[in-house]
Amino acid sequence: MRVLGIDPGSTVTGYGVVEREGATLRHVAHGTVRPRRTGSPAERLAEIHRALCELVEMHEPEVAVIEQVFVRAGNPKSALVLGQARGVALAALGVHRLAVSEVTPQEIKSAVVGTGRASKLQVQQMVKRLLGLAHAPAQDAADALAAAICRAHQGRLAGLPRRATRARGRTRTASWVARRAR
Amino acid sequence: MRVLGIDPGSTVTGYGVVEREGATLRHVAHGTVRPRRTGSPAERLAEIHRALCELVEMHEPEVAVIEQVFVRAGNPKSALVLGQARGVALAALGVHRLAVSEVTPQEIKSAVVGTGRASKLQVQQMVKRLLGLAHAPAQDAADALAAAICRAHQGRLAGLPRRATRARGRTRTASWVARRAR
Repeated sequence: MRVLGIDPGSTVTGYGVVEREGATLRHVAHGTVRPRRTGSPAERLAEIHRALCELVEMHEPEVAVIEQVFVRAGNPKSALVLGQARGVALAALGVHRLAVSEVTPQEIKSAVVGTGRASKLQVQQMVKRLLGLAHAPAQDAADALAAAICRAHQGRLAGLPRRATRARGRTRTASWVARRAR
Repeated sequence: MRVLGIDPGSTVTGYGVVEREGATLRHVAHGTVRPRRTGSPAERLAEIHRALCELVEMHEPEVAVIEQVFVRAGNPKSALVLGQARGVALAALGVHRLAVSEVTPQEIKSAVVGTGRASKLQVQQMVKRLLGLAHAPAQDAADALAAAICRAHQGRLAGLPRRATRARGRTRTASWVARRAR
């Protein structure tokens, strides 16, 4: 079972791909998508869309997972901006007919660290340990990997939507591949 | 000059296409995109993405326009949901390398009705009259047409982004578009 986790954001979108075989968890890939700062909003969001489409085509995950968002009352502007990046991520996954689960931050932390109140640093360190990585991934990629680990733990069937098959992919563009972080 | 206006929303996304030749404004198309209510968020947003891609390919607009959003302090949840639909719309336009302007509600109302304080009904009626339609379009499509009319009035160059289009530096803002339009 191969899972793609996404941690969307307007400036940095983290991603992580893990594979589970029985009780064994394997790291496949992780990194971040960072649209050019000079682009217009439409250009920047299009970059995120294209990058995520390429990721799905490259790694062919069976399911995807994205963190559920709880927006605070104080800042509707940032909720709008986060929503824009999140919508692009969800649509890119949906276009590829991927089953997308949403998991809460507490579920993710519990699955990775063992407590829903874990710190960001603890998540990074446990992601590194669980996947046997040489270095702890940067925060956005670690969060995406943690979401993917959480989803992989939930098993093959949990939250699987009706149509788990993927349709044909969209076109792949080369620009993003070079920026793909390790 | 052919303009695509979009009024994004998670349940209803309005669109309108108008063409300007000199002082003549011509109606090309309008309508709404309504994703199936039974779909998951990813499926619904993917529907919006696909529909807008088809629209762009079908009508081949030269520029696109979307209303600038001012979110209220009270409801960050709805700002997130609106943001998701808006992000999908912006990305779909960006993927097609369309120049996307943002215009304020006041600019749209001023361009269509003559006053920035016009009602929704007045906008619908004026859109009908300006485009010589038999019936006033439904609100979301009327808003999208009104945005397109506003953009068409601003002319070919105003607000054109920087590549085809873009210069480097700051992003376009509605105020900048307005300044250029004067």
